[in-house]
Amino acid sequence: MYEVYVAASFEAAHRLVGDFGPASRMHGHTYRMEVIVRGRHLGDDGTLYDIGQLGQAANDLAASLDYRDLNEVPGLTEVNTTAEAVADYCWERLALPLRDRGLDSLVVRIWESGDAYAAREDKLD
Amino acid sequence: MYEVYVAASFEAAHRLVGDFGPASRMHGHTYRMEVIVRGRHLGDDGTLYDIGQLGQAANDLAASLDYRDLNEVPGLTEVNTTAEAVADYCWERLALPLRDRGLDSLVVRIWESGDAYAAREDKLD
Amino acid sequence: MYEVYVAASFEAAHRLVGDFGPASRMHGHTYRMEVIVRGRHLGDDGTLYDIGQLGQAANDLAASLDYRDLNEVPGLTEVNTTAEAVADYCWERLALPLRDRGLDSLVVRIWESGDAYAAREDKLD
Repeated sequence: MYEVYVAASFEAAHRLVGDFGPASRMHGHTYRMEVIVRGRHLGDDGTLYDIGQLGQAANDLAASLDYRDLNEVPGLTEVNTTAEAVADYCWERLALPLRDRGLDSLVVRIWESGDAYAAREDKLD
Repeated sequence: MYEVYVAASFEAAHRLVGDFGPASRMHGHTYRMEVIVRGRHLGDDGTLYDIGQLGQAANDLAASLDYRDLNEVPGLTEVNTTAEAVADYCWERLALPLRDRGLDSLVVRIWESGDAYAAREDKLD
Repeated sequence: MYEVYVAASFEAAHRLVGDFGPASRMHGHTYRMEVIVRGRHLGDDGTLYDIGQLGQAANDLAASLDYRDLNEVPGLTEVNTTAEAVADYCWERLALPLRDRGLDSLVVRIWESGDAYAAREDKLD
């Protein structure tokens, strides 16, 4: 099994709804997004997936969330903007162009700080 | 599959018994403990498990080991205090309140330095 | 399941063949090699595998690639020196002394920068 990993970051505000103590107040993070694709076979060019291309997809998605209030981002307005929900949101958007390319699975980790992340991992078929 | 990750750290002394070269001498590390819970379903509040609550559990456990000689900590006196054994010790203590909450598994990584860790991963049921 | 992890680094030049944009030019990285062994049982000495011994193997392999042009390293001259290919190369060399020791699998991650890696994970039997 092979993996290719890239990372990108964005600065965003958010607040949680419910019993989350200070996280219920409007605040923000320097989010770090880690993206991993997994698959069994390398192509003729010696790659599982072009790291540069995956990095560009991660950077584009991060740029679309940069300096925003996540609670106002279409696709996130109706959910609690937990790191899990942001991982879901990013997973769905990154998965689209990665299907039907012989890849097995995709992992997206959303770090809220250097000490905490939530991640989603799922099959790509 | 979702993951939630937190980290904590503690300063502790220890020495190994056996043929471990300089590690057989009394020494110590700034240990970093990484804790990951895995599960399949998010709750209504959009979380797999409250990151703040998991972070508190990790911090409490780390505090109980902080500035101690691990070879004298009850539960570690009868084992070789390898990073694997410390991971075991922490895994058992963290797992207790995490059972019966719909979580699949728990990973505990014990870093002895930025270049070395040992980890234990096991099912939570 | 237990894991033991070590890391080492090396400075090397390389260039890719094919449509990889600037990566087709001769360039280089401070490569970071992460090595993880996995297994189910600890030995009587409380270790899955001696971290010091694994670290030595990683350091020796890293030293053999340090300050080299990867495209001229025997074993890499006939492949595209993608991070995946370097992970393959390192995996094969590290796996040899790790077989028949009760270990389940070996992971080798090759970081080209703090934001990108490729990895290979496979069974050790």
